[in-house]
Amino acid sequence: MATTDKAARRAKFEGAWNVIRDELLAHFKACGMPAEAQEWYAKNLEYNVPGGKLNRGMSVVDTAEILKGRALTDEEHLQASVLGWGVELLQAFFLVSDDLMDSSITRRGQPCWYRVPKVGHIAVNDAFMLEGAIYHLLKIHFKKEPYYIDLIDLFHETTYQTEMGQLIDLITAPEDDVDLNKFSLKKHSLIVIYKTAFYSFYLPVALAMLFCRIPTSYILPSSPTPVAPYDVAKEILIPLGEYFQIQDDFLDFSGVPAQIGKVGTDIVDNKCSWCINTALAIATPEQRKILDENYGVKPTPAEKEIAKRMAEVNKGEEQGYLGEAEKRVKAVFEEMGLRKIYADYEENVCKKLSEMVDKIDEGAPGQEGVLKREVFRSFMSKIYRRQK
Amino acid sequence: MATTDKAARRAKFEGAWNVIRDELLAHFKACGMPAEAQEWYAKNLEYNVPGGKLNRGMSVVDTAEILKGRALTDEEHLQASVLGWGVELLQAFFLVSDDLMDSSITRRGQPCWYRVPKVGHIAVNDAFMLEGAIYHLLKIHFKKEPYYIDLIDLFHETTYQTEMGQLIDLITAPEDDVDLNKFSLKKHSLIVIYKTAFYSFYLPVALAMLFCRIPTSYILPSSPTPVAPYDVAKEILIPLGEYFQIQDDFLDFSGVPAQIGKVGTDIVDNKCSWCINTALAIATPEQRKILDENYGVKPTPAEKEIAKRMAEVNKGEEQGYLGEAEKRVKAVFEEMGLRKIYADYEENVCKKLSEMVDKIDEGAPGQEGVLKREVFRSFMSKIYRRQK
Repeated sequence: MATTDKAARRAKFEGAWNVIRDELLAHFKACGMPAEAQEWYAKNLEYNVPGGKLNRGMSVVDTAEILKGRALTDEEHLQASVLGWGVELLQAFFLVSDDLMDSSITRRGQPCWYRVPKVGHIAVNDAFMLEGAIYHLLKIHFKKEPYYIDLIDLFHETTYQTEMGQLIDLITAPEDDVDLNKFSLKKHSLIVIYKTAFYSFYLPVALAMLFCRIPTSYILPSSPTPVAPYDVAKEILIPLGEYFQIQDDFLDFSGVPAQIGKVGTDIVDNKCSWCINTALAIATPEQRKILDENYGVKPTPAEKEIAKRMAEVNKGEEQGYLGEAEKRVKAVFEEMGLRKIYADYEENVCKKLSEMVDKIDEGAPGQEGVLKREVFRSFMSKIYRRQK
Repeated sequence: MATTDKAARRAKFEGAWNVIRDELLAHFKACGMPAEAQEWYAKNLEYNVPGGKLNRGMSVVDTAEILKGRALTDEEHLQASVLGWGVELLQAFFLVSDDLMDSSITRRGQPCWYRVPKVGHIAVNDAFMLEGAIYHLLKIHFKKEPYYIDLIDLFHETTYQTEMGQLIDLITAPEDDVDLNKFSLKKHSLIVIYKTAFYSFYLPVALAMLFCRIPTSYILPSSPTPVAPYDVAKEILIPLGEYFQIQDDFLDFSGVPAQIGKVGTDIVDNKCSWCINTALAIATPEQRKILDENYGVKPTPAEKEIAKRMAEVNKGEEQGYLGEAEKRVKAVFEEMGLRKIYADYEENVCKKLSEMVDKIDEGAPGQEGVLKREVFRSFMSKIYRRQK
C-alpha cells in the first residue's frame, strides 16, 4: 500500500467527503430547494456521516489498493471513496434510525440526531435521505461503468439483509419485555450475521472487488474448478463479522470503561448478546433462575444515583458502579468461566479463518483481477485480540 | 382496454398482490428467518400495503394497456402489477413513516401501524422493509430485462424527490410552531410537486412507459424534431399532480364529511395548504391579522368535547363542529372568495393541460412504442371536478 500512514489515509478519505457532500448539496440547490432545507440537509450530512471511526468506509479504499497491488490514482481514489462513503452513509441511515427506535441518548460523543433541538421525528426522513444519497452518488460516479447495476444490487441486498437482522433483534430483545426463552445462540448468530456482518464486512470488500473488476468466476492454472471469488469472500467475511460482534459483546461484559471507552450496558438493556446466549446454553437450573430474575433488570433509582455520583468522582477511570441485578448476572457469567469459553472460541475461529485464507489461490505473482489473501489478513490483524 | 369493469380490474390487480406477497415471504423464510419474524413481516405487508384506493398502482397496469393498445397477457399483467405494487409499496413506506412523524391516529380506517400494540418505533424498520421489498421484487421480475436499470434509477430518483418534498413540508409547517411567514405559494408548489406529484403521477406512467419499451427519444413523420416522450409526460403529469393536490387541499376546506368521507383538519393542523397560501397572497392587513392569530390554533378542550359529542349524534352526516379559531379562518377564506379563485384555477389548469395533451403526436394509427393521448385523458377524467 502506497500510503501506509493511517492518519494520512484517513485524511485523504475525509477529503473525498468534502467533494461528495458538496455534490449532494449542489444537486439539492439545483432542484430549487429553499435555503432552510439546504441548511437542514447540510447539517444532517455533517452531523451524522463523517464523525465515526470510518473503518468500514476506509476498508473499501484499502481493499481496492490491495487488490490492485498499487496505490490508486486520484481519480480511482475518489471513485473508491464514493463507495466507501456509500457504506458510511448506509451506516448513518441505520444509526440515525436505530437510535430513535432504541431511544438512545448519545452517539459518537454527541446527542443522538433525533435529540437535537427541532429534529425529533424528522430524523426518520433525514435517515431516508442519507440512504437516498447513496444512489444519487452512485449514479453520478458509476452510471457509465459496466458494473453499475452490480453495485446497486449489492447495496440493495445488503440493506435488506440488515433490516431483516434489525427486525429479528427488535422483536427478540425488546428492552421493556424480558423473556430469555426467546434467546438462543442460533438466533444470536442470525441477528449478528444479518444485522452487522453483511454490511460491515462483506459489503466493503465486495464493493472493492466490483470496483477492481474481479469477475464472478475465474479459472486459475492450479485447478480446473472455477473459483467463485465473491462466495469465497463471503464465506470468510461473514464468520469474521460474527467473530467481531461476539468480541464486541464480550468486551461489553469484560472490558472496563478505561479500556473500551464506554460502560457496558448489554445486561441492563436486555441485549441478545453472545454472553447471555452462551450462558443460557450451559446454565444449571439454579443459574438459569438467577439469569431469569436479573437479566434486563434496570438499576433501582438509588443505585442510579450512586452510579451517577461515582462516575463524577472517578471520571470513567474505573469500572462503573453496578446495580445488584447486574452484579448477580455477572457473577453467574464468571462462575461459568465465560472468559475461558470466549478465549477458546477466539482461538478456534481465528485458526479456522486463517486456514481458509491460506487456501486462497492468488494465481501468478502480481496477477490482477483475482482475490488476494492480504485483503482478509488486514481485517483479521485489526480485530484479533483487540481490547477496544 | 379489454377489462373495462373497474371492480374486475381491481380484483385482478389484488390477485397479483397475493403472488407478490408470497414471493417476499418465501424469500424471507428461505433466509432462515425465525417464525416470529416471518409472522411479523407478513402482518406488516398485509396491514400496510393492500388496503388503500390502489389508484397509483393500478394506473401502471392501465397505462400499460393503453400504450400497448390491447389487453395484457397474463405474464405481462403480473409484470406490470409488480411495478404497480412497487408504487404501492413505496407509498406504504412513506405513509407508515409519515404517520409516525406526524403522530397521526388513523389511516385507511384503522389505527396507524406504529399505534398497533407492540409495534411502536419498530414501525421505522418496518417502513424500511417495505422499501427494500420493492428492489427485491424488481430483481426477481426484471433482472433480465434491458430496462432493469432504468426502473431502478426511476424508483430511486422518485424516492429521493419525495423525501426532499417531505423535508420542506416538515420544516415549513411543524404542527407546534405556527409561523405563516414561512409559507408562500411558491413553497407550496415545491412541496406538492416533490412530495406528491412525482411519485403519484409521473412514476406510475414512466414505469409503464419503460415496461412498454418506449424509447427516450423517437422521430415521427410529422416533424423532423425528435420527441422526448418522458419529458412530455413529465411536463403534463407534474402540473396534473399539483392540480390534484390543490384540489385535495380545497376539498379539505370546502367539502363536508358526508361528501369527502373525512373531517378537514388542515387549518387546525397548520398545514401548508393551497388555501392558506392563496389567502396569504391576497389578504388585507386586517385579514392577515385574523389568519396569524387563528391558523393552526387547536380547539379548546371544551370545543373538543362538543365536537366529540356531535360526531356521536350525527354519525358524520353533517359538517363537524368547528372551534372558534377555525371558524374565523374559514370566514376569511369565504370573504376572499376562495371558492371562486379555486374554480377559476381548476378551469384554467384543465384547459392548459388539455391543450398540451391534444398536441401529442401519436404517429400512425395503432403505432406501438409511442406516447398516447388517452394515457393523460384517463387521468384527467378521474380528477376533473371530483367531489371526494
